[in-house]
Amino acid sequence: MNEIKIFSPATVANVSCGFDVLGFCLDTVGDEMVIKKTQEKGIKITKIEGFNLPLEVKKNVAGVAALAIYNDAKPECGFEIEIYKKIKPGSGIGSSSASASGVVFAINELLGKPYSKTQLSTFAMKGEAVASGSEHADNIAPGIFGGFTLVKSNHPLKILELPTPTNLYATLIHPQIEVKTSEARDILPKSIPMENAITQWSNLGSLVHALHTNDYHLLGDSLQDVIVEPYRSKLIPHYNDVKEAALNNGALGCGISGSGPSIFSLSESLETAKKVEKAIQEIYSKTEIEFYTFTSKINADGIKIL
Amino acid sequence: MNEIKIFSPATVANVSCGFDVLGFCLDTVGDEMVIKKTQEKGIKITKIEGFNLPLEVKKNVAGVAALAIYNDAKPECGFEIEIYKKIKPGSGIGSSSASASGVVFAINELLGKPYSKTQLSTFAMKGEAVASGSEHADNIAPGIFGGFTLVKSNHPLKILELPTPTNLYATLIHPQIEVKTSEARDILPKSIPMENAITQWSNLGSLVHALHTNDYHLLGDSLQDVIVEPYRSKLIPHYNDVKEAALNNGALGCGISGSGPSIFSLSESLETAKKVEKAIQEIYSKTEIEFYTFTSKINADGIKIL
Repeated sequence: MNEIKIFSPATVANVSCGFDVLGFCLDTVGDEMVIKKTQEKGIKITKIEGFNLPLEVKKNVAGVAALAIYNDAKPECGFEIEIYKKIKPGSGIGSSSASASGVVFAINELLGKPYSKTQLSTFAMKGEAVASGSEHADNIAPGIFGGFTLVKSNHPLKILELPTPTNLYATLIHPQIEVKTSEARDILPKSIPMENAITQWSNLGSLVHALHTNDYHLLGDSLQDVIVEPYRSKLIPHYNDVKEAALNNGALGCGISGSGPSIFSLSESLETAKKVEKAIQEIYSKTEIEFYTFTSKINADGIKIL
Repeated sequence: MNEIKIFSPATVANVSCGFDVLGFCLDTVGDEMVIKKTQEKGIKITKIEGFNLPLEVKKNVAGVAALAIYNDAKPECGFEIEIYKKIKPGSGIGSSSASASGVVFAINELLGKPYSKTQLSTFAMKGEAVASGSEHADNIAPGIFGGFTLVKSNHPLKILELPTPTNLYATLIHPQIEVKTSEARDILPKSIPMENAITQWSNLGSLVHALHTNDYHLLGDSLQDVIVEPYRSKLIPHYNDVKEAALNNGALGCGISGSGPSIFSLSESLETAKKVEKAIQEIYSKTEIEFYTFTSKINADGIKIL
């Protein structure tokens, strides 16, 4: 195989009570990438469509991730990368992560799959760090593993694959405003009340149990965030209205995707997820803010070969 | 049925990363209780053996729990309670909780089992509050449900039954010193670093996953407590030596049972658990402190009819 085309999906990190550790993978929206083996050694980015991003390898998330796997594998060839970017950078649904994960997945395929998913994640994290300033796997993991993932630890990297309820759908809204990652980070307190922390870990434990037992009711009951949402929701206009509309229309839960501004809802069926999408659209249609919405099955497989 | 004899086991609460929410049930050590229906209405405690505890119903943990179920059920009879107390009060392995849980379990049996386990837990919590000052279910739940339990919330009470790995054994040591519950409570900070809280909930999520996947290695890796242990371990002499000995001898994890002074270890086999017990005994044998140790299978069934 000398060439591969892949779909690298959007992902949701910081899933409610799972701040910094829990993520899941989407299906409807994602980047496409074409990676070609070349006789000439090294990594080249030959094309980026969709958004204006640097072609220079060391300044590009996908480039840096590609270099990480390339320098480890030391193959007798090089690679050319074409990026057809569909996920808007800064949307909060893992745009940079999709580029980083996709390229390492593709190169691994072209090399004959010498690396494990965890190893691929460590390479992708090098790329992710270009965008976010630190290596973390909360969007990388759901992209590479698919479904729901729990990042048990970053150093050493330990990723757990959680079960994905088959009838679970996500509804996303991306209000086209800028939430600076640095602001989203700085707004969080350095220390938190013990009582709230207990509520949070009790909910996360319950959520993991709910995924294992396919218990949608408990899943909804556990999708609470008493730590981060009270702060970050202030950065997203009409957040509370969106959440209220989602829950009133049958969503199991609703929260901030990544560090925002996207908002995710989870629903038990496609029908409910679509109803939720419509209700959320109505909220934002009344504002001046541009937005788009989409509904997606939870993608249990992660990155796909096209 | 006019009379019932039951075994109400010791329990471990605050299991490492599951502070305030996670508990498990022991098998080897527990109270025995005999409950008899009487024609005369009301609750009477007729006998307490083992430890010096109040016979007066309203001052006794079992008495208050019995009154709670009795006043709700309003039966055409009364009940007499005999308590053969084996779990030393203040040991940190759910002594008061065993009395409270046992009596409501027994009365429910004598009434023909009208109540769910969750309802029984709410009655037992009224008794537990006599000893601890507040209603909480972290020792009650594992006694009544058996195995590992997660208290998702106290109000409303929501208890989750987690799977119990079949080959899991606990080793307990009870150093016979007094740790005042109030001191164990006051020593804890009111707020905690965000970073540590994230570590704690990541570990709890992992632990729940480990129980569901029967993954002993991950279980061991998740049995960490970065929040409470650093404070409360100071109240237990030789805590660090005990922990080191347990881990060096193959224990998956080691932590403070309840608010101490008992220390629990978890091991994958009876053989390892016994080896851990011996190693821990050696540590405490060199001190002036009286202690006892025991090893127990995790009791998946909870309270038993004898």
